[in-house]
Amino acid sequence: MEKATHQQTKAHNRNLVLKTIFEHEAISRAEIARKTQLTRATVSELVNELLTEGIVEEVGTGASIGGKSPILLSLVPDSRFLIGVNLGQDNFIASVVNLRGEIKETIESPALRHNPDETLALVIDMLESLLQKQWKPIVGIGIGAPGLIHTRQGMVLRAVNLDWENFPLAHLLEERFHMPVSILNDSQATAIGEFVYGKHVSSGNLIVVNIRHGIGAGILINGRLFQGDGSAAGEIGHVVVNPQGDVCRCGKRGCLETIASAGAVLRRTGVASLSEALERWENGNSGMQAVVAEAGNALGEALAHLVGALNIHHIVLTGEMTRFGEPWLESVRHAMQKAAFHPLVEDTRLEIGMLDYRACILGAAAFMVLEDYDLLFLQEH
Amino acid sequence: MEKATHQQTKAHNRNLVLKTIFEHEAISRAEIARKTQLTRATVSELVNELLTEGIVEEVGTGASIGGKSPILLSLVPDSRFLIGVNLGQDNFIASVVNLRGEIKETIESPALRHNPDETLALVIDMLESLLQKQWKPIVGIGIGAPGLIHTRQGMVLRAVNLDWENFPLAHLLEERFHMPVSILNDSQATAIGEFVYGKHVSSGNLIVVNIRHGIGAGILINGRLFQGDGSAAGEIGHVVVNPQGDVCRCGKRGCLETIASAGAVLRRTGVASLSEALERWENGNSGMQAVVAEAGNALGEALAHLVGALNIHHIVLTGEMTRFGEPWLESVRHAMQKAAFHPLVEDTRLEIGMLDYRACILGAAAFMVLEDYDLLFLQEH
Repeated sequence: MEKATHQQTKAHNRNLVLKTIFEHEAISRAEIARKTQLTRATVSELVNELLTEGIVEEVGTGASIGGKSPILLSLVPDSRFLIGVNLGQDNFIASVVNLRGEIKETIESPALRHNPDETLALVIDMLESLLQKQWKPIVGIGIGAPGLIHTRQGMVLRAVNLDWENFPLAHLLEERFHMPVSILNDSQATAIGEFVYGKHVSSGNLIVVNIRHGIGAGILINGRLFQGDGSAAGEIGHVVVNPQGDVCRCGKRGCLETIASAGAVLRRTGVASLSEALERWENGNSGMQAVVAEAGNALGEALAHLVGALNIHHIVLTGEMTRFGEPWLESVRHAMQKAAFHPLVEDTRLEIGMLDYRACILGAAAFMVLEDYDLLFLQEH
Repeated sequence: MEKATHQQTKAHNRNLVLKTIFEHEAISRAEIARKTQLTRATVSELVNELLTEGIVEEVGTGASIGGKSPILLSLVPDSRFLIGVNLGQDNFIASVVNLRGEIKETIESPALRHNPDETLALVIDMLESLLQKQWKPIVGIGIGAPGLIHTRQGMVLRAVNLDWENFPLAHLLEERFHMPVSILNDSQATAIGEFVYGKHVSSGNLIVVNIRHGIGAGILINGRLFQGDGSAAGEIGHVVVNPQGDVCRCGKRGCLETIASAGAVLRRTGVASLSEALERWENGNSGMQAVVAEAGNALGEALAHLVGALNIHHIVLTGEMTRFGEPWLESVRHAMQKAAFHPLVEDTRLEIGMLDYRACILGAAAFMVLEDYDLLFLQEH
């Protein structure tokens, strides 16, 4: 029975061991065996491979519990690199990231909008310039983009700010750069970034709501991004919350985005930039304060639906709107608590994210590894 | 490396093989091997165990593809039985169910509400009477109950109609009957029932919304019930959808239940029973029709939030409200489409469930097996 499932079992176990090492600063072989429920012999064999690949190293000895002190293993953070990209509304940002989520180098460019080809050319230029730096080997490119993305197909289905429609971005970049490329919605990428690197204590389930020019969410279930049947899970910005509300860029009236987004705050107050809006708000401008409070309120009511549907105890808010800080967060929390079922919401923690714009970049890069640790093995490519 | 993971691998593979047989009317060893990616030798060894246990039998030969005709395997439907229970608002129903979800025997009793102990005594009476029938062996009891349930703890946290609060129902019944007992929310159980036995074509993801006296939902993700961090995922009935609305039994105003539930329709029209409400509605009573349409509308708007959050393409509606049939369904669909983001909702199919009240019973029973196929192995208990 062992023979033919050997390859499968081995790949499975190797992923398990690597995942366990990823999740710890330093860990002994014995502890890995305990956590993975594999034998010490199996763990040793797999760890040897990781040592040979240079992904893991021995970093000293841990506390002894009776016998000799165990040797501790740790990731070699700079043994592999990934590129994470955030194709944002106003700016494109691309970074080289190591295995610990440390950003090594970042380049940035205003988002061009002349035509789809120029946008692609800009992305390629940015990637080429990063690939020429000293960070080697780079094993994959992960991209977060606003709009409707089909991750499995590697397609941007629709992204207004990029002028792309049914655009096979991942495929085009893979052909160009001869390495794996993945693409996912920017709010989903942000959610992964906060989950993996945000130092939140979490059950494995997490909701991250990203409130910027638009609004989107990312949902982690049992430690993995849940994308739904069409890759668009978390696309909550265009749910109508007030049928008599303002016209939305999607064509409907009163979508959540028309009240609760940073874009809505600017539009409704006639202010040109978020910095200016923040200044007015800090100076006690009552019109601005009312609009920001209304934005928080609408968001909180929408969160009540997520609390009921998912009963996930931890919600993190990210994006430019979080610059309105604690008073805004309090209006969100108050509205959420008022609109949600008390026994569910009383255990729900709501907080602002830790990583700002970096969450998307780190999450887009981490997604690739989490979905397939094999990416890290050079000898098999 | 094979040695010590053997037990684990074997349990995993046995579950895989049994799951595959469960999912097919009849299937050959070769086909099982193909689907599970296990070797034929492994599959044969595991199938032999299942034959010995009597859970599986050979049922004839399939079409040959070149060589000799393959022997087909099938579940022995009556080799094991489970009891499924629905502790409903007005009635308790308990059934003996076989491995194909066929209901063998059902008993029913009006739900008593004198005190928690009498309620428990009634449940025990019903179970005892079923356990005395000819259906043997019965390997587990699965219960669906309205209210807040903590499945892992086996607790009814709060269930107004049962007078139970923090009540360790599963534990008490396990002690009494010496077999595994699980308890979950009735709408979650209903969702599993529709998923497994409802003959819906599905991606592995499914939302089932159960609209009866109250409203609850169950969400399947990758073929498994998602319960969230507190077992209460799908508890959407007490999300406020109209802050100026009627007072709800939960104490708040304007919960979804106060507009969209069957209970709301009766209360708002002053009609005593759903049959009477249906009669008026069928006779074209305009007041009744307006209230039912408004109920459908509110539900549709709430579904738009689920569509955005989860992007699951298939939503099934169950419960007494579905007796209002196609016109009501159309009002739900219309409101959902109006309130949801078009690219997401255009691929979302909305339909009425197949199994009526049986979904809860079948789902509560199936949940036990799906979570742990080992339940079926008598020799190891």
